Amino acid sequence: MSAVFRFEVKATDGTARSGEIVTPRGTIRTPAFMPVGTAATIKAMHPEAVHGLGADIVLANTYHLMLRPGADRIAALGGLHRFMNWPWPILTDSGGFQVMSLAKLRKIDDQGVTFQSHIDGSRHELSPERALEIQHLLGSDIRMQLDECVRLPAPEKEVERAMRLSLRWAERSRRAFGTQPGHAIFGIVQGGVSPGLRRTSAKELAEMDFDGHALGGLAVGEPQESMLATIEATLPFLPDAKPRYLMGVGSPDDLLEAAGRGIDMFDCVMPTRAGRHGLVYSRFGRINLRNARHADDPRPIDPESSCEAARIYSRAYLHHLVKAGEILGMMLLTEINLAYYESLMLGIRGAIEARSFGEFVKMTKAGWRAGEAGQSVAQTIG
Amino acid sequence: MSAVFRFEVKATDGTARSGEIVTPRGTIRTPAFMPVGTAATIKAMHPEAVHGLGADIVLANTYHLMLRPGADRIAALGGLHRFMNWPWPILTDSGGFQVMSLAKLRKIDDQGVTFQSHIDGSRHELSPERALEIQHLLGSDIRMQLDECVRLPAPEKEVERAMRLSLRWAERSRRAFGTQPGHAIFGIVQGGVSPGLRRTSAKELAEMDFDGHALGGLAVGEPQESMLATIEATLPFLPDAKPRYLMGVGSPDDLLEAAGRGIDMFDCVMPTRAGRHGLVYSRFGRINLRNARHADDPRPIDPESSCEAARIYSRAYLHHLVKAGEILGMMLLTEINLAYYESLMLGIRGAIEARSFGEFVKMTKAGWRAGEAGQSVAQTIG
Repeated sequence: MSAVFRFEVKATDGTARSGEIVTPRGTIRTPAFMPVGTAATIKAMHPEAVHGLGADIVLANTYHLMLRPGADRIAALGGLHRFMNWPWPILTDSGGFQVMSLAKLRKIDDQGVTFQSHIDGSRHELSPERALEIQHLLGSDIRMQLDECVRLPAPEKEVERAMRLSLRWAERSRRAFGTQPGHAIFGIVQGGVSPGLRRTSAKELAEMDFDGHALGGLAVGEPQESMLATIEATLPFLPDAKPRYLMGVGSPDDLLEAAGRGIDMFDCVMPTRAGRHGLVYSRFGRINLRNARHADDPRPIDPESSCEAARIYSRAYLHHLVKAGEILGMMLLTEINLAYYESLMLGIRGAIEARSFGEFVKMTKAGWRAGEAGQSVAQTIG
Repeated sequence: MSAVFRFEVKATDGTARSGEIVTPRGTIRTPAFMPVGTAATIKAMHPEAVHGLGADIVLANTYHLMLRPGADRIAALGGLHRFMNWPWPILTDSGGFQVMSLAKLRKIDDQGVTFQSHIDGSRHELSPERALEIQHLLGSDIRMQLDECVRLPAPEKEVERAMRLSLRWAERSRRAFGTQPGHAIFGIVQGGVSPGLRRTSAKELAEMDFDGHALGGLAVGEPQESMLATIEATLPFLPDAKPRYLMGVGSPDDLLEAAGRGIDMFDCVMPTRAGRHGLVYSRFGRINLRNARHADDPRPIDPESSCEAARIYSRAYLHHLVKAGEILGMMLLTEINLAYYESLMLGIRGAIEARSFGEFVKMTKAGWRAGEAGQSVAQTIG
């Protein structure tokens, strides 16, 4: 393996761009969607099946893994790639977001954050340096700085305080990471939905020589238009030559809109979580399989999908599995959703390369709007 | 498809025998283990993966399917094979056992049984004729007569009453089934652990021209030696030329012992249920992956298994998945267990053909006794 981490924009269409991130563990085609493997598993899927659907990279959560099974243990077992049997690229977050959303009794100061595990109440500390050390033990390919993310809406003063703290942590994170050939560290832009704060954050980060930049603190309660306006206000102040990652986003519509504005990477629990709750994303929009109208429907989710689960099982059977709480239902729906997300990214990349991104967006949204009426009633499983 | 149902004994070793059941949907190598697909799914596995592990046939539960999603609905959707995407042979039970163990407010008389659904309290009836009608709607390949199974220990009088009722129901079931080329109906021997009652039941059933015979009412609380003694007391009164199915059995040791006595078919929830609760069956015996001693163990379950999940994941990772309640843990352990069960059946069949069954039993049990000491500590995942 050559120890190179490299990003290249290969095509643009307006502000949208496609390209690739080359890492020693594989190439990530961008715009990329990263399935979320919180506890070192993409829930309800075999790892090789996740890769088979077109995922070049997955995300794993530092917070969850440091608590269980522990970063030292994973290191002793040969690192996260071997542990979870995923030999391709992995991005780890810094743990900051989950500390804020999951942990108990948090105390945050300039040094870092102390908190109690949501699993067993044990006390832990996370500093910018410790977050990087843990990610080093995990052996992930792309690592994230520790940041503080505030829930929106929040007072501007509070948003600014967290943004400035995140910038100080960014500097310490960048220093702690040092130089690690073949691995990358991303800084995280904060600043809520304030264009001014975002600009400050982006400009200061841009000077710190990160390998890529993330937009954090979005999709945390604000309307989609605020999120998109914030992306537009921020990206001009980040270097074009480095990948831009929109954290925790989003719905298929969010992916289209944000990719159109120049985002290169996404992660979200939406397709996997929805799959465990009877919801399907498809070319025909969102389908709630709990609904009784599917009980006698012999049609598959999408007879033209590249995903076998979307082609060979009837909606009636999927409805039955969901109603009966069967694990196979969660497995098949997760597979169908991730396949749809990855096929959407494939379409986005292809459209940018063909300079027909606008047309692709129109067609895709028309398909969602048409819904199941867009599918022939005659189509049934073979 | 030629509409033939045929059983052939191809080799014997003492009382053990191997052979095949030929059906229009495929050949079942015997002795056979049938994974249990209660609600039209082998829990936590894709159907094609179940077949890939060596299962020639699965069992589905009439009781569960008549309540949800309903037999008429499955028939309208093209039958159970298409519904659950399992094109190979399926055996359905009659529903009797689950009515006794799961349903509420049962009332049983000569006509049949009325009961309330454990899902929604709705009232249902099951008679010998209705049980066959439901199985016909499902379209299963092998169908079972309705019987009454009493929990052991029970007074001999009660056991005899249920046995005689089951015989009357056997006659009605046989008549209701009639002639259905390519499909089969099995009668069920009852009589608890009383050799006299079992003999009576077997002899009377043998005169009714069933396609095969099952031993019901075993593995319901009695010691293993009672079960084996009952098998020995019963089989001489059943025709050799028809398959013999031991219902609801059992542990790997039960399979060895019962196959040695001439049983041709088994079904049991043990491998699948255990897999959802952190327990693994292997050449090294039973392994409880919840146990903390596995937390740092880099070894796979069995580096020589034909099952990838048993070869490529460390015990440490499986332990982590089980502790974290991850669905992938249930998926992998179910797969490992069914693979072990099916490989055990493969070994049993091969040993009978080679007339070395006794030696195979000795070696297999020695492996279980030696436990993990039988595996080199140096063996780790690659």
